[in-house]
Amino acid sequence: MRGAGMTAESAGASSQDRAKRADAVRNIESIVAAATRLLAVDPDASINDIAKAANVGRVTLYGHFDSRATLIREVVDRAIAQTEEALADLDLDGDPREALGRLLEATWHLTHRFGAVVVAASQALPPDQIRRAHDEPVLRVRALLERGRDAGEFRRDMPIDWQISVIQAIVHGASAAVHRGEISADEAPVLVRDTSLAALAA
Amino acid sequence: MRGAGMTAESAGASSQDRAKRADAVRNIESIVAAATRLLAVDPDASINDIAKAANVGRVTLYGHFDSRATLIREVVDRAIAQTEEALADLDLDGDPREALGRLLEATWHLTHRFGAVVVAASQALPPDQIRRAHDEPVLRVRALLERGRDAGEFRRDMPIDWQISVIQAIVHGASAAVHRGEISADEAPVLVRDTSLAALAA
Repeated sequence: MRGAGMTAESAGASSQDRAKRADAVRNIESIVAAATRLLAVDPDASINDIAKAANVGRVTLYGHFDSRATLIREVVDRAIAQTEEALADLDLDGDPREALGRLLEATWHLTHRFGAVVVAASQALPPDQIRRAHDEPVLRVRALLERGRDAGEFRRDMPIDWQISVIQAIVHGASAAVHRGEISADEAPVLVRDTSLAALAA
Repeated sequence: MRGAGMTAESAGASSQDRAKRADAVRNIESIVAAATRLLAVDPDASINDIAKAANVGRVTLYGHFDSRATLIREVVDRAIAQTEEALADLDLDGDPREALGRLLEATWHLTHRFGAVVVAASQALPPDQIRRAHDEPVLRVRALLERGRDAGEFRRDMPIDWQISVIQAIVHGASAAVHRGEISADEAPVLVRDTSLAALAA
């Protein structure tokens, strides 16, 4: 067993270290959760707001994240991981239009959950780090569009890159429209799906 | 005649004042033109970059614009004025689909000309000042959509606000896609028009 031969003193120190590490992990989780929650509605949420919501001091926060940008990068990394996990579970086989409908609905929910995190990220991080957030979802959309174009379901008289941009613009536009109160979060997924399919239909 | 009774001294001072005012106007025009040109391609263009491109010193620039945000507000105000002027000349009568095609093409050219100014503005100004930039163009689009919906040319199973958001998202998405090099500026207006009309078609 690891550490079985330790002296009482070093065991004591190690147990203190473990407690400190557990504290640190708890604080990091609180900070990231608070940052995600606040940034999703207000891209300008400050370090003070986030520390307060996480119930930690500024010094503790800066001990774990040396800048607001570093914290936002962590929030974005986790958002990407959760997005990839959610999309990996989707069935994208069968009729391309129905499959795209399922993919758009899932994408909508993720985009809306992370909301203004995208805005915060685009203000605080370099563009290539933002683009990375879309790489994996884009591959899925692209594969599906290719299949639908080959099957004659989606129009082929436009570049596929343009069609991907249109879908992204519609999804992000819907999120912004919900935040402005122009459409409800309930009607958004259907509007996103129907509008995207209409724009793509052969 | 105004100033006819002035002494020689006050006339001399007045002529100096006029020269100073003419200098100031020239500098302001240079600064705003340089800011528009630089911000259209790089939303993060700095005050130093702008002063250099305008061939004026930082002190002169700050004498006319007390902050980067003030300068950006002036750039945006002029962009709005030019946009309204260009759109006011458009013929929006006749077939709603063709009229919307003309409006979208003009909107595309304006959006692309001012390019990243929108991004710079959204980072430096409060959201309500950004929204104002879209108020007048939006009224035109709305009136045309209402006419096309009434004529049975555009679908009515979606909120008109949503359809306006979709058009804005497609136009801005096209500008971003051109800046990323995914589509060319030449093919953009046709893609914007065809995609928007497909999304709206009854």
